[in-house]
Amino acid sequence: MRIDILSLFPNMFAPMQESIVGNAQADGLVDVHVTDFRQFTTDKHNHVDDAPFGGGAGMLLQAQPIFDAMDHIEQEIAGQVPKGRVILLDPAGRKFDQDYAMELAQEEHLTFICGHYEGYDERIRELVTDEASLGDYVLTGGELAAMVMVDATVRFVPGILGNHESASGDSFSNGLLEYPQYTRPADFRGMKVPEVLTSGNHQKIAEWRMKESLRRTLLRRPDLLETAPLTREQQIMLQDLKLEYENPDLAD
Amino acid sequence: MRIDILSLFPNMFAPMQESIVGNAQADGLVDVHVTDFRQFTTDKHNHVDDAPFGGGAGMLLQAQPIFDAMDHIEQEIAGQVPKGRVILLDPAGRKFDQDYAMELAQEEHLTFICGHYEGYDERIRELVTDEASLGDYVLTGGELAAMVMVDATVRFVPGILGNHESASGDSFSNGLLEYPQYTRPADFRGMKVPEVLTSGNHQKIAEWRMKESLRRTLLRRPDLLETAPLTREQQIMLQDLKLEYENPDLAD
Repeated sequence: MRIDILSLFPNMFAPMQESIVGNAQADGLVDVHVTDFRQFTTDKHNHVDDAPFGGGAGMLLQAQPIFDAMDHIEQEIAGQVPKGRVILLDPAGRKFDQDYAMELAQEEHLTFICGHYEGYDERIRELVTDEASLGDYVLTGGELAAMVMVDATVRFVPGILGNHESASGDSFSNGLLEYPQYTRPADFRGMKVPEVLTSGNHQKIAEWRMKESLRRTLLRRPDLLETAPLTREQQIMLQDLKLEYENPDLAD
Repeated sequence: MRIDILSLFPNMFAPMQESIVGNAQADGLVDVHVTDFRQFTTDKHNHVDDAPFGGGAGMLLQAQPIFDAMDHIEQEIAGQVPKGRVILLDPAGRKFDQDYAMELAQEEHLTFICGHYEGYDERIRELVTDEASLGDYVLTGGELAAMVMVDATVRFVPGILGNHESASGDSFSNGLLEYPQYTRPADFRGMKVPEVLTSGNHQKIAEWRMKESLRRTLLRRPDLLETAPLTREQQIMLQDLKLEYENPDLAD
């Protein structure tokens, strides 16, 4: 997979070298190119922004440097990889989530356009296939958002996650939140690990984990239960948990 | 505001120097300290992770290095700033949004704990006041998420945003998506700026912008209209827009 990123702050992408994206690049599975689109400006002062038509505070990214940078990337990848989806980071875009990440992981080529300043010229949208949002909050630039999306996406590119980290045990991958986990020591500052986990009884451990995963989801993200594909055993456990919270005396 | 970040990858925070957080630090408004909690491990091999009790794939962050790093920070800030909220990044946490960012911006001290590996020892939750999630997706580490939260939060610390960038004109700040914006040239590759924006008629421009902001919100995030505080004028415009989409012949 080739990933192109258009940004005015190419140095901001240094953290990717230390993360899973760095490993993926070292393994030759992902090829990340960051293009500083300021180098494509035709403005003699190298400006890439200008005031909005109609007035108002703030500066907008101009269309020209972005269009020209995209033309350049298209020439560069010609014959190597078909031009793929182009993602603009915008608070009004499609909410990024695990399904979206898996969808992007199927692509051979992705381009992320990182905005900055107050906003960007509307005509830039003509270049894009996807407008994506990380959530209902505003960042000063698209760089962090692009790194988040690349990180979450690259995890699903086949061959990237090793045994030390598996995507399938994650929260959300089975539609539920993860159960509580503990590692050594068994007693830390008086806080003890639940006995079942040190019992060696694998069936009881599996049951405890399933129940605690359901419990956490019920208490903290009940909305997930509406769509999670539950087994018959999980449905019964969930009924028991609901009774437990309706009648606290029943709690074990 | 003092911000502490606990991470195994302190170099990943380099991008903050180039962003608004860097400016805020230069202005003395925000003071960011990144602590590599591996230096607090008592393990002779400097390990900070171990296998989960009860079995299973993956490694978990141990409680001890995090607790000791927190003790260290508490000593460091004693007498300077009261210990504030401690945020653990977790997919099961409270969804981060603009209100959450404004809330955190009121604090004098924030600590972010960045997890890694498959997860962390449950007892680490005893230290935290907030569990926060960027969205329904999984990242390989908490570093990017912490940077996103710090960036979105720091924008609301008084004195940080200059005139060149105002938080109040953002999407979401009035509960609606932003209207389309355009900058020079007026005609780019045949794509023209809407005439009203070059008319010089300020009232017509303001009306067009308000209507397009409502239109975009209606078409792309109708959920926001349920809570946005609309003026009477906006309510009338919204009714007109709804009619327009019910009866396409009415469109102007």
